[in-house]
Amino acid sequence: MKQPRVVLINTSHPGNIGATARAMKNMGLATLCLVEPKQYPSAEATARASGADDLLASAQCVATLDEAVADCALVIGASARSRTLAIPMLNPHSCAELVHQQPDVERVAILFGRERSGLTNEELDRCHHLVQIPTDPDYPSLNIAAAVQVIAYELRIAAGIVEKPDEPAVDYASMTQMEQFYTHLEHTLVELEFLDPENPRQLMRRLRRLFNRARPDQNEINIMRGILTAANRKTR
Amino acid sequence: MKQPRVVLINTSHPGNIGATARAMKNMGLATLCLVEPKQYPSAEATARASGADDLLASAQCVATLDEAVADCALVIGASARSRTLAIPMLNPHSCAELVHQQPDVERVAILFGRERSGLTNEELDRCHHLVQIPTDPDYPSLNIAAAVQVIAYELRIAAGIVEKPDEPAVDYASMTQMEQFYTHLEHTLVELEFLDPENPRQLMRRLRRLFNRARPDQNEINIMRGILTAANRKTR
Repeated sequence: MKQPRVVLINTSHPGNIGATARAMKNMGLATLCLVEPKQYPSAEATARASGADDLLASAQCVATLDEAVADCALVIGASARSRTLAIPMLNPHSCAELVHQQPDVERVAILFGRERSGLTNEELDRCHHLVQIPTDPDYPSLNIAAAVQVIAYELRIAAGIVEKPDEPAVDYASMTQMEQFYTHLEHTLVELEFLDPENPRQLMRRLRRLFNRARPDQNEINIMRGILTAANRKTR
Repeated sequence: MKQPRVVLINTSHPGNIGATARAMKNMGLATLCLVEPKQYPSAEATARASGADDLLASAQCVATLDEAVADCALVIGASARSRTLAIPMLNPHSCAELVHQQPDVERVAILFGRERSGLTNEELDRCHHLVQIPTDPDYPSLNIAAAVQVIAYELRIAAGIVEKPDEPAVDYASMTQMEQFYTHLEHTLVELEFLDPENPRQLMRRLRRLFNRARPDQNEINIMRGILTAANRKTR
């Protein structure tokens, strides 16, 4: 089964990491990436992983989210609450279908944030979509491993039943290319005096949401970079 | 929400009872029945229940399965493996639909067996159906609370109380605004000498595809127009 990676960010309780590994392995997922876990490796993680300690052993441990998703083409953030800014929201079923419709499922990352506070705005800036598990509105906060279990369950079902649409494969821009584009865009907007570095407000965040929704391919991101370079030439 | 009861039989680890309570409460289930738990009440159960300790407090604790299901009309056993005896097997989705088709959902019990050995043959004798969560055949044994999470998730969806994902209404740009934006963009690209009007090739078409995919809202299209105006000011 071709599979996305699961990225846990800043997890506090090692037990949750172990339980996540178990949930993943039960559903046939194997690629786990840990961004700055608070306490890891840990005997508690291994205990809760039960027989899935091979998955812990092969887990990648990195310092930043950017490292975790550098080669990814689609990033989906798990979110317990609605967000004000416009990131398209999926339910677990449509999330799983979207993942398995991708030309390269291995380049999909699904992010799970901190136990108490979830994902930060900077992390949401990297997300093309959010996925929200339906819950009782009075008690919406799932345990992380439980959230992974539900998403992984839907992924397993979708892996079996969803056929790829008959569509040319898209060579999406990588996250690294997207970050380079955003940096270039920001500098250009400062040069154009459209963005005040002293008072940036939400401008870059809004532009990220816009371009992340569009999911540019390699060619499109090259065009956008070309436009920025043309603007740089004219203003210098 | 009318709801079935969840019955845990002979659970060894009190943490699993707490995690089950949390998984249930997240999905809006409230009726938990414990048949001869090994160690209960327990501080570990309460800790893992997180905010769902009210559900533990109201849980019924009984000595036998027969007591737990005495007033029930439909009993469904969760099973990790196929059984030789002919009990009709459901997947989580069809299980949840069956439950919510019952005239009296409160008279449905879903049984979860021991961590290591599941349900005994005597317990299976009480089951009208089995429900099996699809797993990797090489690693099929879910944690009990994780299994409850998946079943409770499907129950919540089948109950029909799932609202559309929590998303703010989007005030999309009108087609007229989009055309005005594309005209402005094209003029600006000519000014920047990025677009040669004698040889435009597919450039505007490519940019249209990109921005149409993003479906900008009013605010975003205003930002883009503002950027173009800033570029116009610098190049004139």
